Amino acid sequence: MKVGVVGGTGYTGVELLRLLAGHPGVQVTAITSRAEAGVKVADYFPSLRRRYDLAFSDPATAPLKGCDCVFFATPNGVAMSQARALLESGAKIVDFSADFRLKDRATWEKWYKVSHASPELFGEAVYGLPEINRERIRKARLVANPGCYATAVQLALLPLVESEHVDHAHLIADAKSGVSGAGRKAEIDILYSEATDNFKAYAVKGHRHHPEILESLTTLEGASGRKLGLTFVPHLVPMVRGILATVYARITKDADFQAMFEKRYSKEPFVDVMPPGTQPETRWVRGTNQCRIAIHRPMDGDTLVVLAVEDNLVKGAAGQAVQNMNLMFGFPETQGLEQLAVIP
Amino acid sequence: MKVGVVGGTGYTGVELLRLLAGHPGVQVTAITSRAEAGVKVADYFPSLRRRYDLAFSDPATAPLKGCDCVFFATPNGVAMSQARALLESGAKIVDFSADFRLKDRATWEKWYKVSHASPELFGEAVYGLPEINRERIRKARLVANPGCYATAVQLALLPLVESEHVDHAHLIADAKSGVSGAGRKAEIDILYSEATDNFKAYAVKGHRHHPEILESLTTLEGASGRKLGLTFVPHLVPMVRGILATVYARITKDADFQAMFEKRYSKEPFVDVMPPGTQPETRWVRGTNQCRIAIHRPMDGDTLVVLAVEDNLVKGAAGQAVQNMNLMFGFPETQGLEQLAVIP
Amino acid sequence: MKVGVVGGTGYTGVELLRLLAGHPGVQVTAITSRAEAGVKVADYFPSLRRRYDLAFSDPATAPLKGCDCVFFATPNGVAMSQARALLESGAKIVDFSADFRLKDRATWEKWYKVSHASPELFGEAVYGLPEINRERIRKARLVANPGCYATAVQLALLPLVESEHVDHAHLIADAKSGVSGAGRKAEIDILYSEATDNFKAYAVKGHRHHPEILESLTTLEGASGRKLGLTFVPHLVPMVRGILATVYARITKDADFQAMFEKRYSKEPFVDVMPPGTQPETRWVRGTNQCRIAIHRPMDGDTLVVLAVEDNLVKGAAGQAVQNMNLMFGFPETQGLEQLAVIP
Amino acid sequence: MKVGVVGGTGYTGVELLRLLAGHPGVQVTAITSRAEAGVKVADYFPSLRRRYDLAFSDPATAPLKGCDCVFFATPNGVAMSQARALLESGAKIVDFSADFRLKDRATWEKWYKVSHASPELFGEAVYGLPEINRERIRKARLVANPGCYATAVQLALLPLVESEHVDHAHLIADAKSGVSGAGRKAEIDILYSEATDNFKAYAVKGHRHHPEILESLTTLEGASGRKLGLTFVPHLVPMVRGILATVYARITKDADFQAMFEKRYSKEPFVDVMPPGTQPETRWVRGTNQCRIAIHRPMDGDTLVVLAVEDNLVKGAAGQAVQNMNLMFGFPETQGLEQLAVIP
Repeated sequence: MKVGVVGGTGYTGVELLRLLAGHPGVQVTAITSRAEAGVKVADYFPSLRRRYDLAFSDPATAPLKGCDCVFFATPNGVAMSQARALLESGAKIVDFSADFRLKDRATWEKWYKVSHASPELFGEAVYGLPEINRERIRKARLVANPGCYATAVQLALLPLVESEHVDHAHLIADAKSGVSGAGRKAEIDILYSEATDNFKAYAVKGHRHHPEILESLTTLEGASGRKLGLTFVPHLVPMVRGILATVYARITKDADFQAMFEKRYSKEPFVDVMPPGTQPETRWVRGTNQCRIAIHRPMDGDTLVVLAVEDNLVKGAAGQAVQNMNLMFGFPETQGLEQLAVIP
Repeated sequence: MKVGVVGGTGYTGVELLRLLAGHPGVQVTAITSRAEAGVKVADYFPSLRRRYDLAFSDPATAPLKGCDCVFFATPNGVAMSQARALLESGAKIVDFSADFRLKDRATWEKWYKVSHASPELFGEAVYGLPEINRERIRKARLVANPGCYATAVQLALLPLVESEHVDHAHLIADAKSGVSGAGRKAEIDILYSEATDNFKAYAVKGHRHHPEILESLTTLEGASGRKLGLTFVPHLVPMVRGILATVYARITKDADFQAMFEKRYSKEPFVDVMPPGTQPETRWVRGTNQCRIAIHRPMDGDTLVVLAVEDNLVKGAAGQAVQNMNLMFGFPETQGLEQLAVIP
Repeated sequence: MKVGVVGGTGYTGVELLRLLAGHPGVQVTAITSRAEAGVKVADYFPSLRRRYDLAFSDPATAPLKGCDCVFFATPNGVAMSQARALLESGAKIVDFSADFRLKDRATWEKWYKVSHASPELFGEAVYGLPEINRERIRKARLVANPGCYATAVQLALLPLVESEHVDHAHLIADAKSGVSGAGRKAEIDILYSEATDNFKAYAVKGHRHHPEILESLTTLEGASGRKLGLTFVPHLVPMVRGILATVYARITKDADFQAMFEKRYSKEPFVDVMPPGTQPETRWVRGTNQCRIAIHRPMDGDTLVVLAVEDNLVKGAAGQAVQNMNLMFGFPETQGLEQLAVIP
Repeated sequence: MKVGVVGGTGYTGVELLRLLAGHPGVQVTAITSRAEAGVKVADYFPSLRRRYDLAFSDPATAPLKGCDCVFFATPNGVAMSQARALLESGAKIVDFSADFRLKDRATWEKWYKVSHASPELFGEAVYGLPEINRERIRKARLVANPGCYATAVQLALLPLVESEHVDHAHLIADAKSGVSGAGRKAEIDILYSEATDNFKAYAVKGHRHHPEILESLTTLEGASGRKLGLTFVPHLVPMVRGILATVYARITKDADFQAMFEKRYSKEPFVDVMPPGTQPETRWVRGTNQCRIAIHRPMDGDTLVVLAVEDNLVKGAAGQAVQNMNLMFGFPETQGLEQLAVIP
């Protein structure tokens, strides 16, 4: 199967190339980069030497239309312009950006501050969180890969939102991400000397993953129409990869929350509900597509604490994209995603 | 003025020595360490070369009784055995450990799991948070220096607890600390290769600073008798120094919270309420005695978010100890504590 | 094929388990740890969850004698006591420690300061650097896996030592290693707060890998009898994995050194001579068995500079051990070792 | 005394502001930044809150001519255009850049690839390494502050170059620097996710500090005319501050090198020759103006190893600049430079 990657010079792009190199069912036939067109991919990312022989091609002339599957590992605004033509050529698309993550155009345009180029695809695009939308993903031509925070926070909240045991109107997600989540951009505030040995909150006023989480959780089957309130505060951790979401929910009706989570995720290959008392660490999932979750009730009080870790570049981006591709093309869901975490 | 330091080989000890070296009013005349007795302090910590000529002395024979002020930079359990004799010799004491932080002996013994050696001093010991107890500290012979988390969380909560605008029963403090907070102990889980490039919550079930915060805040003048509920979850950040406490409170009655905090701390030399919209970073206070605080109300909702940063080894330990000493001995409160943060 | 791992709780042990999990030809049937006997390996290392079901077994009772291959991922001194009995049971051994790396018993005992328990195996043990000893490794029962520094330094020096173009008597290897090279031991000087944001040389007086490098290089076929002089200074880098060796050699007779290295390693699956001008980075090999090498001649002077990077836990330990096992048992040499580096 | 700082938004600029804040003899009256003109310095660098009230001024209109001393904490090419006018206004200048570090214009223009704007000042400018040029600095109007690497390497080499005991033609300096040495510039390769958990050599072909070191050492009184050969390879360490230079020299005539270094630096307030066997760590000088040096002779061979550590932003930049200012204006040489290292 032929695969194309649009935007191969960022962190999610190079991670996707790492994962696809180990997937027996696919062959990468085009990797685009406007800035690096003509440069060998393995000269740009020497970690890919001896495995990738391709050069970056110019997006304008890249042979993407011959691909069965095209990944957009691009900033917001690219996929929405190119998706229609590619779909018409017969390709299926997994878009890493936010272009097709929302159903509500007004909300999208409010948060992303541009006019959307292909709003007619909003209806067709499927939000690519397999733990919610597995069957719809199988049939989709266009999958909007969820944001990294959005994946961790939703997996932490899902069983709670699907049931009636906590106050849905006052959920809190205190989330912490490694610096790779900010992308591979030449910006002062993610320089080594700015970001290391430091910790801060950011986007406290409002983060773009907020509406994505709310829309996805409020349109859940069974949860539809329910009002959700979520305070979401992201923080920047001096590490490369990893997200830990610490979710707080007020218990309104008692339950065996451990059992609730274990049951909800019992069939999921990439959600691992850990034993009671576990305090998951981001490194336990580094380089892997696993999300590991633990349930706590500090001091036996009325506040539930859910801890969820993922690798923001894998389950939060490239790995989930491969998982979606596997579903869309009938590969085993875990194919190419069996790596164990690199420890230490 | 003669000063002694009991337990000079830990991180709070060496930080105290750094600060005292720049304090014009004191002379360090004894630094004890059982394990390193006889070793020159500046051979053990070469950063102190050319400034400290003393050798570590054995605690049993150290000339502490001639000191005007003795700091205990020791693990829990040391100060409680030695305090009485030193006080009787005429020395005043600042204890970094938890030995005298609680008034309630039962609570203390439940959390620290030993029988207290000097419970008769509970009444005399003053909890050394100047922003609450300044006048009592001035007159104290025995000051219990607060815990690092306890300092940041209390400074973030204080104006809220002293007023009636948020739900006091359901406060949340999601706190994050650098690794130096765990001390200078040979333990696997704070090895470089374990703690770097990693993030985790710990002590989710209950942390020892929890009862200290609750007792201190519920015994505030004016707040007395009020029931407080606090969920406190500490996390370990791969950095050396710094704590960020992200505090969440449900607003029950509107107020200008920015003005409330600015007014509360307007005279405080070491609490800096930052302009609206600020997202304080731990490095802004690295190596200094400042606590910087910012107030947020994400998405204009009903949840207040207070962000407080401090250096856990300075305002969270050695700096606050010097601040307490300054108060106890009539030095200007900021003397020896004027350093600016080392950036980057 | 049944494989046993003696000493599974260290960094080389867990790395070996990660690699073996992806090797189609082997099944791990025993993992020993005296301290953790009875504990599930995946409870101890949660990164191994869903892949390893075994518990650690006590070394005394572990079913090692039924194994075809036993790895000793243990400190020095363990393998030398147990090797004989295992060999007699029919197992082959790859030893990560220094127990069998030297041929000269007096040198061994001088550096390791104990009496060797099985000097009679010195003759049989093969030094496991495939780039030198591939054919002998294929036939070996007992392979001494080289040290991490020793691997990088030898691969950087090998073509120079096998030819006559540099001054062999005054070679310099300024080597830098990540902290995982120090192992997973509860020691103060590898604590996070000691090792991060810091850089130092260590063992300047003499490092144990020094005699290993010298003996191996002076006993090369063709180089035999030649006198080698090497100044070797290791340094500690605040990173987890990776070694960079910067080797300096005085050129005595001109040559095309780039071509010399390319030719020497043209058939090697795990030595990658990079294009002229390349400055290899340790992360380019993180998590992989590759050693990447570049040749420089600064300012066109008479000093040759060779830069070699490897992952100390893979090509410097567990990966090279699997490579040796592949050779010993007739698997394809690269099997289980095809991972790409985790970037960033 | 009035002091101006040209270029206050970089790392050496903010470090200079930190140091000047603690210097009792000076008042900073102008801090320039084209990009940030009008912004309060303490809003830009919140670590300076409560200490600096100034705003950045536009370089074109800044009141620099009223200053007694002007520091250029600017990239190469700025000071050379503005120095003449400022000198004529009566100000003295300390320039952090390379504009006046060389005496030889052709060499300067070869390395810096532009035509020099004020070559007539080459003769007047004094190279600001007090350990070589103290008396000339005292009388200078224009001091060229040495490069960070150049300071560490020269202090490690100086006693060797001034005597006749090692091979001067084949010196090697393997130097390692923290990332802050690369400045505060929005560039991909110093992003956190690129530079952390990584190690590499760079500028192996030739680094701009090379000619500076050679020119300075060959024009030493007493060393004049001597031919020096130096291979200099810089490396990038994943830490913020600090340089370690590991210098290798072939011993040609025996000597007590420890005594040689101790004697050479016995009067120096900022060069600390450590006891035999010491392996200096960069954190021992973090935030301070000290350079700490140790002498080794590994395996008692004929190669001398000198280890020198400094903080690249202090003794390698802003601290040395203050030291030079102290000399130029008759302050005690150590004034404002008495800080102890922040440990850990």
